[in-house]
Amino acid sequence: MRRAVCLLSGGLDSATCLAVALRDGFETYALSFDYGQRHRVELVAAAGVAQALGAAAHKTVAIDLRTFGHSALTDDIAVPKDRSEAEMVGSIPITYVPARNTVFLALALAWAEVLGSTDIFIGVNALDYSGYPDCRPEFIEAFERMANLATRAGVEGDARLTIHAPLMRLTKAGIVKLGSELGLDFGLTHSCYDPDASGAPCGQCDSCLLRAKGFAEAGMPDPARPL
Amino acid sequence: MRRAVCLLSGGLDSATCLAVALRDGFETYALSFDYGQRHRVELVAAAGVAQALGAAAHKTVAIDLRTFGHSALTDDIAVPKDRSEAEMVGSIPITYVPARNTVFLALALAWAEVLGSTDIFIGVNALDYSGYPDCRPEFIEAFERMANLATRAGVEGDARLTIHAPLMRLTKAGIVKLGSELGLDFGLTHSCYDPDASGAPCGQCDSCLLRAKGFAEAGMPDPARPL
Repeated sequence: MRRAVCLLSGGLDSATCLAVALRDGFETYALSFDYGQRHRVELVAAAGVAQALGAAAHKTVAIDLRTFGHSALTDDIAVPKDRSEAEMVGSIPITYVPARNTVFLALALAWAEVLGSTDIFIGVNALDYSGYPDCRPEFIEAFERMANLATRAGVEGDARLTIHAPLMRLTKAGIVKLGSELGLDFGLTHSCYDPDASGAPCGQCDSCLLRAKGFAEAGMPDPARPL
Repeated sequence: MRRAVCLLSGGLDSATCLAVALRDGFETYALSFDYGQRHRVELVAAAGVAQALGAAAHKTVAIDLRTFGHSALTDDIAVPKDRSEAEMVGSIPITYVPARNTVFLALALAWAEVLGSTDIFIGVNALDYSGYPDCRPEFIEAFERMANLATRAGVEGDARLTIHAPLMRLTKAGIVKLGSELGLDFGLTHSCYDPDASGAPCGQCDSCLLRAKGFAEAGMPDPARPL
């Protein structure tokens, strides 16, 4: 059975992405990061999703990106609330964590190499996150090219490493529909950037607004519940 | 003054690389990693080198690559000893840490982005480490290309991020000579992959052998001393 490393934040995108990897017949190795995010409750969600979907293994790597600072997701910078769609797109938001997907994919690559896997899944999406440079298809393609030069496979073998980004061109509603079709229980996922102490979503950050819009446009209720 | 992030292991290559960045007029931000390496004494060396050369800042990021395992540098796998040069080149050694330079450069990229820096220095060398896929010029070029798509600069600005690898085509003797010319005290550096409990080098691992050969060919004594 082919192995795939699947980046799993615990949000609805990465959970759907993991479901896609399983649908495609991979034995999945889910990878999460404790990077100093203020929404650490997503790690509880990630563990629940990995277990429910049947990942072969789930690891959480601690890496303190607060060392470098400068993001509303990790610092004491306020998470923007109640922004319009026009405000969300076209510029890089303060919730952008510098080089986050590069760091996460690099660590996924390390695990993949140890596992003998040549497949990595990441739930990035170019539509709803057009302001994040590391969510664009040209970034994913460049990472894949670099990864094939970085590893044993690129030197000794003829195996080609593939970065799968199956959600890249889906709308949030499309992701909700896809996850539902694959039997994913979205009640296990967490999306909010700025939950309260109990882990309850704020309902006003970009991520909450996009999630709500996604379920609304998919014509489905959001089964979100306390984790 | 232009800022540069400089990867600094504490070995003689990265110390020379930091000296080159300073010679070239950069304000330097040295970055080290506590990644579960058995030769953690190199972090003591890195701190000493950063201070002696006058880095503007030095950070050590903890990231446990033992989570993934599978390298003699992090696991309980024996470090090879007394290998010939022929044995060292041409195949990937067990001391290779999967995707290590990809992970380290990704984190350097994160810090560079926060600092507003578009320059990263790494002391990789294609000659003595020809068995490490992530020490080759084509890897560095591919990382640079990817990095320019991963960051704010690649989306919003016209600044181009550069990965400097000034030691790429030098022999170990050439690196020793260059570092000496730049006033680097190699007695502050540590190279051994398998030091004893006091931090003293084994004298038999690839890294010790290459260091000894480098000083011998440069016609200089190795000023190594307890750190």
